[in-house]
Amino acid sequence: MTETTFRVDGRANDELRAITIERGWSDQAEGSALISFGRTKVLCTASFTNGVPRWMAGKGKGWVTAEYAMLPRSTNSRMDREAVKGKIGGRTHEISRLIGRSLRAVVNMKALGENTIVIDCDVLQADGGTRTAAITGAYVALADAIEWGREHKFIGQKSEPLIDSVAAVSVGIIDGVPMLDLAYTEDVRAETDMNVVVTGRGLFVEVQGTAEAAPFDRRELDALLDLALGGAVDLTVLQKHALGRDA
Amino acid sequence: MTETTFRVDGRANDELRAITIERGWSDQAEGSALISFGRTKVLCTASFTNGVPRWMAGKGKGWVTAEYAMLPRSTNSRMDREAVKGKIGGRTHEISRLIGRSLRAVVNMKALGENTIVIDCDVLQADGGTRTAAITGAYVALADAIEWGREHKFIGQKSEPLIDSVAAVSVGIIDGVPMLDLAYTEDVRAETDMNVVVTGRGLFVEVQGTAEAAPFDRRELDALLDLALGGAVDLTVLQKHALGRDA
Amino acid sequence: MTETTFRVDGRANDELRAITIERGWSDQAEGSALISFGRTKVLCTASFTNGVPRWMAGKGKGWVTAEYAMLPRSTNSRMDREAVKGKIGGRTHEISRLIGRSLRAVVNMKALGENTIVIDCDVLQADGGTRTAAITGAYVALADAIEWGREHKFIGQKSEPLIDSVAAVSVGIIDGVPMLDLAYTEDVRAETDMNVVVTGRGLFVEVQGTAEAAPFDRRELDALLDLALGGAVDLTVLQKHALGRDA
Amino acid sequence: MTETTFRVDGRANDELRAITIERGWSDQAEGSALISFGRTKVLCTASFTNGVPRWMAGKGKGWVTAEYAMLPRSTNSRMDREAVKGKIGGRTHEISRLIGRSLRAVVNMKALGENTIVIDCDVLQADGGTRTAAITGAYVALADAIEWGREHKFIGQKSEPLIDSVAAVSVGIIDGVPMLDLAYTEDVRAETDMNVVVTGRGLFVEVQGTAEAAPFDRRELDALLDLALGGAVDLTVLQKHALGRDA
Amino acid sequence: MTETTFRVDGRANDELRAITIERGWSDQAEGSALISFGRTKVLCTASFTNGVPRWMAGKGKGWVTAEYAMLPRSTNSRMDREAVKGKIGGRTHEISRLIGRSLRAVVNMKALGENTIVIDCDVLQADGGTRTAAITGAYVALADAIEWGREHKFIGQKSEPLIDSVAAVSVGIIDGVPMLDLAYTEDVRAETDMNVVVTGRGLFVEVQGTAEAAPFDRRELDALLDLALGGAVDLTVLQKHALGRDA
Amino acid sequence: MTETTFRVDGRANDELRAITIERGWSDQAEGSALISFGRTKVLCTASFTNGVPRWMAGKGKGWVTAEYAMLPRSTNSRMDREAVKGKIGGRTHEISRLIGRSLRAVVNMKALGENTIVIDCDVLQADGGTRTAAITGAYVALADAIEWGREHKFIGQKSEPLIDSVAAVSVGIIDGVPMLDLAYTEDVRAETDMNVVVTGRGLFVEVQGTAEAAPFDRRELDALLDLALGGAVDLTVLQKHALGRDA
Repeated sequence: MTETTFRVDGRANDELRAITIERGWSDQAEGSALISFGRTKVLCTASFTNGVPRWMAGKGKGWVTAEYAMLPRSTNSRMDREAVKGKIGGRTHEISRLIGRSLRAVVNMKALGENTIVIDCDVLQADGGTRTAAITGAYVALADAIEWGREHKFIGQKSEPLIDSVAAVSVGIIDGVPMLDLAYTEDVRAETDMNVVVTGRGLFVEVQGTAEAAPFDRRELDALLDLALGGAVDLTVLQKHALGRDA
Repeated sequence: MTETTFRVDGRANDELRAITIERGWSDQAEGSALISFGRTKVLCTASFTNGVPRWMAGKGKGWVTAEYAMLPRSTNSRMDREAVKGKIGGRTHEISRLIGRSLRAVVNMKALGENTIVIDCDVLQADGGTRTAAITGAYVALADAIEWGREHKFIGQKSEPLIDSVAAVSVGIIDGVPMLDLAYTEDVRAETDMNVVVTGRGLFVEVQGTAEAAPFDRRELDALLDLALGGAVDLTVLQKHALGRDA
Repeated sequence: MTETTFRVDGRANDELRAITIERGWSDQAEGSALISFGRTKVLCTASFTNGVPRWMAGKGKGWVTAEYAMLPRSTNSRMDREAVKGKIGGRTHEISRLIGRSLRAVVNMKALGENTIVIDCDVLQADGGTRTAAITGAYVALADAIEWGREHKFIGQKSEPLIDSVAAVSVGIIDGVPMLDLAYTEDVRAETDMNVVVTGRGLFVEVQGTAEAAPFDRRELDALLDLALGGAVDLTVLQKHALGRDA
Repeated sequence: MTETTFRVDGRANDELRAITIERGWSDQAEGSALISFGRTKVLCTASFTNGVPRWMAGKGKGWVTAEYAMLPRSTNSRMDREAVKGKIGGRTHEISRLIGRSLRAVVNMKALGENTIVIDCDVLQADGGTRTAAITGAYVALADAIEWGREHKFIGQKSEPLIDSVAAVSVGIIDGVPMLDLAYTEDVRAETDMNVVVTGRGLFVEVQGTAEAAPFDRRELDALLDLALGGAVDLTVLQKHALGRDA
Repeated sequence: MTETTFRVDGRANDELRAITIERGWSDQAEGSALISFGRTKVLCTASFTNGVPRWMAGKGKGWVTAEYAMLPRSTNSRMDREAVKGKIGGRTHEISRLIGRSLRAVVNMKALGENTIVIDCDVLQADGGTRTAAITGAYVALADAIEWGREHKFIGQKSEPLIDSVAAVSVGIIDGVPMLDLAYTEDVRAETDMNVVVTGRGLFVEVQGTAEAAPFDRRELDALLDLALGGAVDLTVLQKHALGRDA
Repeated sequence: MTETTFRVDGRANDELRAITIERGWSDQAEGSALISFGRTKVLCTASFTNGVPRWMAGKGKGWVTAEYAMLPRSTNSRMDREAVKGKIGGRTHEISRLIGRSLRAVVNMKALGENTIVIDCDVLQADGGTRTAAITGAYVALADAIEWGREHKFIGQKSEPLIDSVAAVSVGIIDGVPMLDLAYTEDVRAETDMNVVVTGRGLFVEVQGTAEAAPFDRRELDALLDLALGGAVDLTVLQKHALGRDA
């Protein structure tokens, strides 16, 4: 679509990085996916437990939650471990909550029944877009954990807890130009940075736009949303393919 | 404007709650405001310190940061204190970071010089919209702290660190109808909830929309942004009035 | 009474600062009071819960406890938040425990029944005497929470959990002269500092005297106790008035 | 003196328990004492360091501080370790602060010079009065650490940092009768409990009286202070003897 | 055995330091011992509780666990308290776990029945070998706590939870020479350091060898194990004697 | 070698699991290896920093340290994150310290110069032997980080900080039979479990043997050490091969 290409890796402005989804990476988890958005690699595992936390019991509804973390040397310079510091930072909290909300938006908790699925998204290598890769991969792990629950009779054969699929992508404005799926060096240069979570049907789950360097106007916002919706369509196709549901 | 009114307090869908800003509430802080959005009351103080954290020193730039907290009985049922639990929750972190980013978006750090302003937003009573009230009140406290810095010669007489003003408001969709400035009981009913931070010139600083109950489409998003921009205009007028700059 | 007046605000040595008690400040709590001792302002809320902690259950007795905290910019220079530091300091612990003991001294736990009242005393602005203001205000909040419990039938109509009222005041020796209700600048100058908690009937609940700069003798101790008992009488009158029980 | 004796161990109401002070118990510390008040045993060590914390440097003054702790099985039933719980409780904080203030009251910080003495009081076995035993033993350890500092030329030969000695004792009212130096079983029965810290010259450093079961009047307070002053005289003699200064 | 003696205290290379075991030191604990390995002094208490942690209940088996800690001034220079730092260090964790495993190795949990014994080993003075002294003393405390359990009918009269006794000793290579029971100054000079836990029958429970300065070969390892087994025989005799079982 | 094979995966008793070492897995770290011991997968990264911690500066020596952690769903059932719990467990501490000591045993700190290398070993999937896989992989990451330091002139061209290589393997006794490199299901059945760290030249760095179910005798210990030394030879070959130094 856009003509001028001036991104480091030669991508068009509306082009995703190379995306790979290695489904079933883990031998231990009920669902898992190692997802790459370019050099960003996130290991997503879904742990299925029959039963729900005590405060939810007896309502016939399930629960889905998520935790995000980065390995200390996933980034260019080593960060201290949050476990060593003895507390979780604000950014980690924020992203864990975002992933959890995004997944819950496509789950029918009644259909899930009194089962709990915990999604862990651990960033093995970071190059921008770790939260969007995490959400996109987490959906694949979640789908498999739900399937596992059905096979093991914790979820009824006719129940379909998944209402829709969900994927996420970052967009931003760099030197006045809207771009899709920012790598780390692009992200630090962006005036405005937005993470958009979209369902397979093209509805918004989360829109989180932040003016990093300069406030943005309505027109810019619209351009970013257009780009994000386009990228989400591609990610949805890749998720379906990974899950073998693309026929 | 909108015809049907069915809000608990009789407001129109595009109407703010009663807003009051008690500027200079604190005898101790360099800037302060006790702001009310209806029954929501937030005490905002701005603490001015000459100098910056060590990692920023020598660059000729200032720093603005914020911390948000709720009194344990600001809400309908008492919450445990985060100090007693020994850690800050994800929501608190998230809002503190949002307030800080929102304020920094309207500050020219070069013009501020090597000075630090810490904004504390403590919710004395909560009835929905605490983060938007906090941002709106924090701007007034910030403006006074900057004025204090100028009077005490820590900021040059000709420097103007404030590029613009900033205010925030919540919007949401309830039973399919977009509404402005949700009270707590409205917030829990909302299908979609959005917090929008806007400058006095009408540019976006943050757009944070979340599908609480159902994903939303582009048309709904547009309607919410329209409402938010309208509310922000009113808040900007009230801020100017509180600061005695409305002439 | 005393002739020479040399206090900053012109008070006599045995004179309290201006005391105001804004009863029912909070819309949320079962009992509340915003109390001022001069520039010191403390928001006291009382949260009533039916039931007691598990370790007390089944004994037919209630429980009253208290937590004290200061807003970070309640003081002249900003303090770090205890929630951010991840632990509560010794002074905070000490005062919370003092408030709790002081209130329990005037409550008949059998008459309270298996109900719990948690008092939160949050210092909004500090100018000396925050713990004594907190105790004095907390009693008003407590009395209203007990009344609430009676109205809501959690406490029997004929039960009277309150045995007596309770108030507190600081006294100290400055340049050899005993004085009542020290403001912050007086407190730092005091050789000896004493906090005295007294019931409405004039009995001692707590006497905490500390030689800050010089040990004190029996005669000085006696003078301080005299002053404190006098101040407590005035505070008791103000509490009754706030509660509308002064006829 | 008093006629009726009804204490478990046959003591008179104004009689201390058997007190032993094993000075120089530790081979490691600059000053130390293992003190017993009956079955209560506290190991007090004083650690002398040349220099003061950064915030005090350059003022020519020293610093004395204290930390108190109980071994987990010093008491009749085992308590969890505070290190395992990851935080120090309010009571521990309170007592550590009390010991530090008590010792500082008899130290001339100018004469101590820029040196720091940290007193550790670890309760090896507890049977009531641990804080008063700790203060009494800590003074002996402190005196030896100061002597050590003089011998090692960190303190001038003519300087005398110790202004006075200091000791502490508990008193309480049991069944209406004032008694000295309460053992644990007496302490739990006491209506009123008071810890009094007194210098060798008979001046008060701290008076901390608490109505455990019933508020107390002025006459009772006076009787308790009399008892405490008497007990402190005996403790001062024992301290002098332990330090070999009783001639 | 070895001819050349060049140890500071004149010991032979295969000779233990003076060992004393003061059994029943504590009036409070069900079992206790104050053990000395030369200047190293460790207070070991055993707390007996009827019942087991919830996760173990209903299996008819008991539980034995241990906690190790050092007083802050047990060492030559004062260490910060772990409770003050708010976390337990790696070394403390490691030694606590080692003591627990060592004791469990000689306990028949079925014969203990659903009872829990917590061993606390608090180092009052440290001069090397604190973990080995702790294990050796802990066994004595454990034996008495088990006896207490039997006397109080929590353990059957015919049950014998103790399968064997257990003791521990350190060995190391200094300047190429293997030596038994290292004092602190020897420990810091050792190229290789090994802690060996041995039962009364001469079987290994733990072998923990570490090359501090230089990796060691099989022959050196064998020499160290020989020394350790010899030392353990002596410790076993002393334990029996302390327990009055040496006839 | 051994005749009877009864291990789940058909291995001989003295046979390692399939070992793979993916050197340079990370684009970010100065050295890295993804190592597998069968299904156990550990990502080892080495972070090189010029300079040393302040307490070591000015001595011309470097520092090597390590941190170990497990992803929450690396194991068969999900574990809580240590960062969420706010503290690091004893086992994690113990293994981190073991890895650090093992690596330091083969590094000449003088030759390393004032540089710091931090090794992170994160277990992505666990099936027994995670600490031995971590040490073996960490050596490869360390070697590459040292090479990186040399290339970037932080280490002299003629300096050789690596004295030797280092690898580790577990051994254990199952039903009386000594076996090499235990998988998880074997580990839980083992009566005795030993981790042995050995240099490329065949010297011991650490020997950590633990009687899990039954104390062991000298003959069993010898058999385990023989097995471990044999396994270490194989691991050394694989390390050399991964580093391209096997010619």
